[in-house]
Amino acid sequence: MDQRISFITLAVADVARSQAFYIDGLGWEPELYVPGEVLMIRTGKHLVLSLWDRAGFEAEVGPAQSGPGAVPITIAHNVRTPAEVDQILALASSLGVEVSAAQQRDWGGYTGYFADPDGFRWEIAVNPGPIGELVLPPD
Amino acid sequence: MDQRISFITLAVADVARSQAFYIDGLGWEPELYVPGEVLMIRTGKHLVLSLWDRAGFEAEVGPAQSGPGAVPITIAHNVRTPAEVDQILALASSLGVEVSAAQQRDWGGYTGYFADPDGFRWEIAVNPGPIGELVLPPD
Repeated sequence: MDQRISFITLAVADVARSQAFYIDGLGWEPELYVPGEVLMIRTGKHLVLSLWDRAGFEAEVGPAQSGPGAVPITIAHNVRTPAEVDQILALASSLGVEVSAAQQRDWGGYTGYFADPDGFRWEIAVNPGPIGELVLPPD
Repeated sequence: MDQRISFITLAVADVARSQAFYIDGLGWEPELYVPGEVLMIRTGKHLVLSLWDRAGFEAEVGPAQSGPGAVPITIAHNVRTPAEVDQILALASSLGVEVSAAQQRDWGGYTGYFADPDGFRWEIAVNPGPIGELVLPPD
């Protein structure tokens, strides 16, 4: 099994609400949008983010966790400068979602979080180490 | 905000158990391994999968969901042929994790699932459509 990820799929309560946030709000381009069913967004050369209606997800995968607390995952979007981190978190805040302000981390990074409309945490990050370099596309 | 994903982070109960599954079991190469803290694996040109000790995750992100049901996400690994899907699911089964056998899907694909040691679902998939082509690296 090659070490590759092709899709990340998030089960969402309302695909139209996801569309409003990711497409209208963040300004991203959809790759596929089937209202009420699924929204797919290209997030890498060979990578797609899929927002899938929770009922469809559960019909195929099985009942999903709910209840208090964060989903035990985060998705990171890395940038080159702390100013970009702050700008993106300000954009998220302007869209009405929950934001945790960025801070310096013990490991040398500068990161903060926003939660999408379903509570999925996006970490907006500067990582000055070699792995941080690896994930950044060329200028 | 560019439409890019840099990291996918999963909160795991035991990083050593994740290391045994992904590195020893699937044969993947670690990018970074700090026992008891984090295991990072490169899963794309600019993409890293991070398995982060749940206590560290919760200290930064907040309490995480638990309880019955699947985490409401899946990670897909797409391949070119149904035979490859079945081979990977057989490999996962041989490593002792839960597997849902692949089947033909209404949308034309052939997919099945395995759950990693923490229950995160990986979908192993053939997707014969244009988005399926998009996620496959060149031969």
